[in-house]
Amino acid sequence: MSYQYDEQLDGVLASHDRDAVVAELQQLLPDLQLLHSREEVRPFECDGLSAYRTAPMLVVLPERVEQVQALLKFAHARRIPVVARGAGTGLSGGAMPLEKGILLVMARFNKIVEIDADAGIARVQPGVRNLAISHAAAPYGLYYAPDPSSQIACSIGGNVAENSGGVHCLKYGLTVHNILRIDIVTIDGERLTLGSEALDSPGFDLLALFTGSEGMLGVVTEVTVKLLTKPQSAKVLLASFDDVERAGGAVAKIIGAGVIPGGLEMMDNLSIRAAEDFIKAGYPVDAEAILLCELDGAESDVDEEIACVDAILRESGATDVRLAQNEAQRQRFWAGRKNAFPAVGRISPDYYCMDGTIPRRELPRVLKGIGDLSVEYGLRVANVFHAGDGNMHPLILFDANVPGEMDRAEALGGRILELCVEVGGSITGEHGVGREKINQMCSQFSSDELTVFHAVKAAFDEKGLLNPGKGVPTLHRCAEFGAMHVHQGALPFPELERF
Amino acid sequence: MSYQYDEQLDGVLASHDRDAVVAELQQLLPDLQLLHSREEVRPFECDGLSAYRTAPMLVVLPERVEQVQALLKFAHARRIPVVARGAGTGLSGGAMPLEKGILLVMARFNKIVEIDADAGIARVQPGVRNLAISHAAAPYGLYYAPDPSSQIACSIGGNVAENSGGVHCLKYGLTVHNILRIDIVTIDGERLTLGSEALDSPGFDLLALFTGSEGMLGVVTEVTVKLLTKPQSAKVLLASFDDVERAGGAVAKIIGAGVIPGGLEMMDNLSIRAAEDFIKAGYPVDAEAILLCELDGAESDVDEEIACVDAILRESGATDVRLAQNEAQRQRFWAGRKNAFPAVGRISPDYYCMDGTIPRRELPRVLKGIGDLSVEYGLRVANVFHAGDGNMHPLILFDANVPGEMDRAEALGGRILELCVEVGGSITGEHGVGREKINQMCSQFSSDELTVFHAVKAAFDEKGLLNPGKGVPTLHRCAEFGAMHVHQGALPFPELERF
Repeated sequence: MSYQYDEQLDGVLASHDRDAVVAELQQLLPDLQLLHSREEVRPFECDGLSAYRTAPMLVVLPERVEQVQALLKFAHARRIPVVARGAGTGLSGGAMPLEKGILLVMARFNKIVEIDADAGIARVQPGVRNLAISHAAAPYGLYYAPDPSSQIACSIGGNVAENSGGVHCLKYGLTVHNILRIDIVTIDGERLTLGSEALDSPGFDLLALFTGSEGMLGVVTEVTVKLLTKPQSAKVLLASFDDVERAGGAVAKIIGAGVIPGGLEMMDNLSIRAAEDFIKAGYPVDAEAILLCELDGAESDVDEEIACVDAILRESGATDVRLAQNEAQRQRFWAGRKNAFPAVGRISPDYYCMDGTIPRRELPRVLKGIGDLSVEYGLRVANVFHAGDGNMHPLILFDANVPGEMDRAEALGGRILELCVEVGGSITGEHGVGREKINQMCSQFSSDELTVFHAVKAAFDEKGLLNPGKGVPTLHRCAEFGAMHVHQGALPFPELERF
Repeated sequence: MSYQYDEQLDGVLASHDRDAVVAELQQLLPDLQLLHSREEVRPFECDGLSAYRTAPMLVVLPERVEQVQALLKFAHARRIPVVARGAGTGLSGGAMPLEKGILLVMARFNKIVEIDADAGIARVQPGVRNLAISHAAAPYGLYYAPDPSSQIACSIGGNVAENSGGVHCLKYGLTVHNILRIDIVTIDGERLTLGSEALDSPGFDLLALFTGSEGMLGVVTEVTVKLLTKPQSAKVLLASFDDVERAGGAVAKIIGAGVIPGGLEMMDNLSIRAAEDFIKAGYPVDAEAILLCELDGAESDVDEEIACVDAILRESGATDVRLAQNEAQRQRFWAGRKNAFPAVGRISPDYYCMDGTIPRRELPRVLKGIGDLSVEYGLRVANVFHAGDGNMHPLILFDANVPGEMDRAEALGGRILELCVEVGGSITGEHGVGREKINQMCSQFSSDELTVFHAVKAAFDEKGLLNPGKGVPTLHRCAEFGAMHVHQGALPFPELERF
């Protein structure tokens, strides 16, 4: 998985003299914290996708909006690319630096500006950690719903950039459904407000457009989030199955019954054993699959739904269904799931985490397909997923020290994502495209669709300076990758017909 | 409220010879239904905002996607503006035709393509009526949640164009939260798919960008909607207050208690009396305000929440709280609210329906402000609103036959919307900007923000042929309107400083 510049980057990556840039910036913004020595920039070489590493030309850590404005204006004038970064926990290399670019670290924007408990909103700076919002809101009986597994570390600004989800997003939605307004700075240094506290905002929905845009349209400097009332009660069922397909069938039946669980997660045998070995969650290590189903809301409602789901699980062929008997056991059931990734890390020198989504009804077909691919490539795959919303996280186990295994893992990952697209799904559920999945975007979208993405990008950042080489591939890249999606039988490049 | 072309239209409105265009189109698309005589086009002169009327150059009623593609390609090549129209029930003039443009009526795209009850989705053509989706889904125990008051007539394509809400959108969200995927045709005749059945779609969120874009980015040819399971139980409380402010306070307390009602509506005395006189809903005609609060979900849960809300209403000073005793009474309570607009139409020769949103906490302040403005302009205002989400529908009563009253009504409406913006709200909740509120967009947005809108528009429609003169004003228009929003003390046109 070596990182290669492509023509998208060639366009913006003029050579800049680091020392000259540093000197100019120090003159322009004497208060701006700047890191540029080899030792200082090393910690920023990668984000959560550690397979890709590049040292940035320099790192800046502004703490005021005016500094962000001045810095972006400077970069714009000098045509220096800029990559914004939150906590660096992203899993698709979205915040990976560029060797010839500035890494704009928003960590010092770490204040909770206001909590308005009556209105159920909080205004926070982008460097505030996801979980810190819920902690600050707790005294009012409120919390911030999206809960990525990295919530103890990841920042709300990064959540906006990646439109992060979590185990509860089936019921409570993604980041885009839980924010009301953001303040951003554009590449030419303008401050804009997108969205509003009101239900809907007139004009084009730029808040939704920006959410999940992976730092390619601007830099977030403040986020207004919705706070929800903590559910009165939350209970979780653990169901065991001796067949993965039957577990998949149960998922469809639960959703079909009109129950919307707070969380509905599935793990296969390899994941179960790894998690149990690590966390002692109380999982049945002989089961082929388990489902974790949490119901939350008013006490009486939860009890009624638990009974309903329990019955569905048994009818669907669960060999055992257990209700967490108390809060400690509920937390333990979840701890196994939330630590599934590091648990798998203990049974394999390396693993590669995928993030595809599929229509729920395709679950059995895709699981079988992954099994076949696993055999074909000679690599084990552990399956962990947000079953309720069809978001899969296959973990490909490999050993980077065995020649060829890393490349094989990457190839297998690509095939799995293509399988997701084939059944009507998509190449990312909640981890973003970033650097990692830029080639798979060529399978997901037609050249017409990519052209619209490019035009939208240009509407915000004509020179392509914000996070180039991430998120949206060039048509040229797709042609080279050789997997340009063919839409309704049309050639991707109609002009080729003419020559 | 005379309709005037502005420079935005001048740019695209070349003079076309109607007969020549008709002849060319008949040759190009012999199967396409075309209306162009004065009598044929008259029914299409306006949409639900009847104050603005213009006969279109010609009307086309395609029934296949290929016809839409060919027509748009033709219009693009000839630089003829195109206005797409659903059922024509919109209240902001979004589908108002252009004298020199083609009106593209999607009424014949009226098929429900597929209902997948297991997946909880339906694929429908854009001309399908909102309520028809729920009727088709009813045998499976499912329904489509957004319910604008016009749901018996309005089409899903129009709902997408305006991001329509309804009395239940507080709990179930707007159109954007209830659709998964749309197929569109761009102005150059390309077919694109935006969104997917998966939870999240990679790349920029063009589905959300398109939803509510009022026909300015493309034409919808198919919509995949989410279907929800019908709630087991729905009950409604009717609370009377002798003071409007106290009713507003109760709204905040209900939401603050963590209850999310299916609907939470408020009406003031003038609306109550008009509705009661028309519908005999059983409303207390002496009350200064009423609240209608519906709770839906599982039986036991609803009963618990009804008890909770009942207590809050009484604590908040309600003089009377009544629970609808049966389904017939529940329907009657809602019929009064849903017919409030026509009811007000019976007590005034004309009325002008506004659609602003405000933060809930500002309800008392804004109601007082509207009262003061009503006195200042010498016109009665009836207040009906989706209180739970701060979406107000003040109805300004006037008589178009009294010289000056129509202009006064329009001016008063503008002042009310500016008041909404002043308290942090917005100029439209769910009716869209359309033609009607294009000037108020200048108050809502800064010139930098409008410039981004223009760039996004150009990304889809560089020549500005799709629904010109609606939704987003030009900077020039705002300068003439004289109400350009001044952002953080900056002059709206910095270049003016230099001269």
